[in-house]
Amino acid sequence: MAKLPYTLWIEGHRVLTWDQRRLPFREEVIELSTWQEAAHAIRSMQVRGAPLIGVTAAFGVALGLRELAGSGRHSSLTAAQTALDEICASLIATRPTAVNLAWGVNQVRRAVAQAPHPDWARVAWARALELHAADAQCNAEIGNHGLSAWKEMIARAKDQARPLQILTHCNAGALATVAWGTALAPVYQAHQQGIAVHVWVDETRPRNQGASLTAWELARAGVPHTVIADNAGGLLMMRGQVDVVIVGCDRVAANGDVVNKIGTYLKALAARAHQIPFWVACPLSTIDPDTPGGMQVDIEDREASEVEQMQGLVEDQSSALYQQMVSVRVVPVGSAVLNPAFDITPAALVSGLITERGVIPATGKAICQVLALEPA
Amino acid sequence: MAKLPYTLWIEGHRVLTWDQRRLPFREEVIELSTWQEAAHAIRSMQVRGAPLIGVTAAFGVALGLRELAGSGRHSSLTAAQTALDEICASLIATRPTAVNLAWGVNQVRRAVAQAPHPDWARVAWARALELHAADAQCNAEIGNHGLSAWKEMIARAKDQARPLQILTHCNAGALATVAWGTALAPVYQAHQQGIAVHVWVDETRPRNQGASLTAWELARAGVPHTVIADNAGGLLMMRGQVDVVIVGCDRVAANGDVVNKIGTYLKALAARAHQIPFWVACPLSTIDPDTPGGMQVDIEDREASEVEQMQGLVEDQSSALYQQMVSVRVVPVGSAVLNPAFDITPAALVSGLITERGVIPATGKAICQVLALEPA
Repeated sequence: MAKLPYTLWIEGHRVLTWDQRRLPFREEVIELSTWQEAAHAIRSMQVRGAPLIGVTAAFGVALGLRELAGSGRHSSLTAAQTALDEICASLIATRPTAVNLAWGVNQVRRAVAQAPHPDWARVAWARALELHAADAQCNAEIGNHGLSAWKEMIARAKDQARPLQILTHCNAGALATVAWGTALAPVYQAHQQGIAVHVWVDETRPRNQGASLTAWELARAGVPHTVIADNAGGLLMMRGQVDVVIVGCDRVAANGDVVNKIGTYLKALAARAHQIPFWVACPLSTIDPDTPGGMQVDIEDREASEVEQMQGLVEDQSSALYQQMVSVRVVPVGSAVLNPAFDITPAALVSGLITERGVIPATGKAICQVLALEPA
Repeated sequence: MAKLPYTLWIEGHRVLTWDQRRLPFREEVIELSTWQEAAHAIRSMQVRGAPLIGVTAAFGVALGLRELAGSGRHSSLTAAQTALDEICASLIATRPTAVNLAWGVNQVRRAVAQAPHPDWARVAWARALELHAADAQCNAEIGNHGLSAWKEMIARAKDQARPLQILTHCNAGALATVAWGTALAPVYQAHQQGIAVHVWVDETRPRNQGASLTAWELARAGVPHTVIADNAGGLLMMRGQVDVVIVGCDRVAANGDVVNKIGTYLKALAARAHQIPFWVACPLSTIDPDTPGGMQVDIEDREASEVEQMQGLVEDQSSALYQQMVSVRVVPVGSAVLNPAFDITPAALVSGLITERGVIPATGKAICQVLALEPA
């Protein structure tokens, strides 16, 4: 059985991951052994989180090419190219809007294009492994830099013989990435280094990624944590029970505004009111220099059913559905629902962006500087 | 069928109310025709909300005395007094901590004590009716004063040919009182006067009083409203989609700090950040001059199961539990949970307290002045 912080791992030529649809109540490892299985895993949301989807798609292409090589049916270059095109198109079509998905597919495709046709399967697998390692490495670096930024706070908590109290929203953990996660990377590294930490886990309505995914992965990694309603964070901060807030991000605008899961902004406001540092874990790939500010981001309204219904496990032993996952309605039928997926945290509320290249202020200038260093 | 804004209403000698445990999915009116039924309604939480519990208990005593008078079994004063003591004690014992419960019982008892024994049933009924009318009147006054405070905003919204956008948290509506509610009283009055309003209803995890009770009663009264996750309010305020926030309160301290349902504070911070008025509907009975400030209030931690589980209606027609209320677990078994029931909104964030005697600032001085006018 795999150990966190890895969410997608390789054993020989086997690609393994969790079926995230079953979490947190069923821990099921699935093996992706064909490109169709990789496509299915993405489409059915067995895997989720942009980086994880991208790497899964990359392995999808590699698995497809291995299949072709094994079958011998596509010995001509033209036939192989047609088959490759089909596999890539099918993988890219699994989710409509995931940028990382096309990116992962195209990374492998580009590597293959420069190799002789009989080497495709080997080259594709090697490239997928590189992408896998690169994502893990990126997040490990975010973990290092985050931990450095927290050094004084950690020392203070240690002096007071108490754990560092961290609050997080949604799931920017290992399960959204290949390994470590982004917001949880410093948490895992602290825990591995024997630094006492405790995480307040926002439930994160309406989709409950905190209560289901973050709580599950922290429990599995042995990190002490407590689930709270999204409403509770303000009181905890007022009482001095939170040392630091860290969240991931869906997009960071050129001016440092942070677009992240709905509810992030309320926690940033509360952190500011109580002078609590509010950090954003931010791989450089999530910075969009073409978006001037957060208000220019079109916030997606998701389906009302996410608010209207809750999915969970039936625990009543006398029930006909004991131990089954059931969806229940929690909003009256006659009431309208609005379900915006993200909100905008103004740069001024952000203590800093923790990137794989170090911690930078959430300002246009710092963002320009760090992006200028990046290879195109 | 009764019409809101009344939650408990009298038809002849019949006491009628909603079974709130069934809401919002089953609309069931129950009749309380014996004191035991009144006691059961309080104990089993068919009725909830401090003022409603108090008045229900008052009718409980009146129903008990009518029963005694009818039976003729307690014709001696001593026997009647013993029976009255028993009824009162039983009613007071139905809920451990509800202050209004004892208050309602004792109001009727005091009235009875001054009357000749054969008049008890009549006097008790009359006193219960008075308490019923007084609560409705108190809340109607809160509605009037709230509407006056909103006058300019209402005019501005009307000029812009759009509804006044109101955000509320939890249920401080008709269902928590005999009629009108507190926070929703100005909303109902605006609606009745033909003023266009729209209410953003915070779901209010963990117990979902917003999504279940507030949404239901607004729908039944025909008030346009939209349910949102508790996380969404900050974004809506940032986008200019909220004109005013109004909430009820569990207790107001002598300095104007407001103790209310967990999550209230986060909305107050967001309202302040966007210069949106944040009002607290506050019957004078909820002001506690003996509590110096909010931080002196002991915040109750409620059961973890409220966060761990969600109750809702099974809508899947193929399910064995179709149309039944089911409780499902939404937090992994190995994760700890903290469930503080209330939080503290500092007086400085409160635009004003809307009381039955008018709108006052949330300051110690104003609170002293208004309480000095009250009869002891």
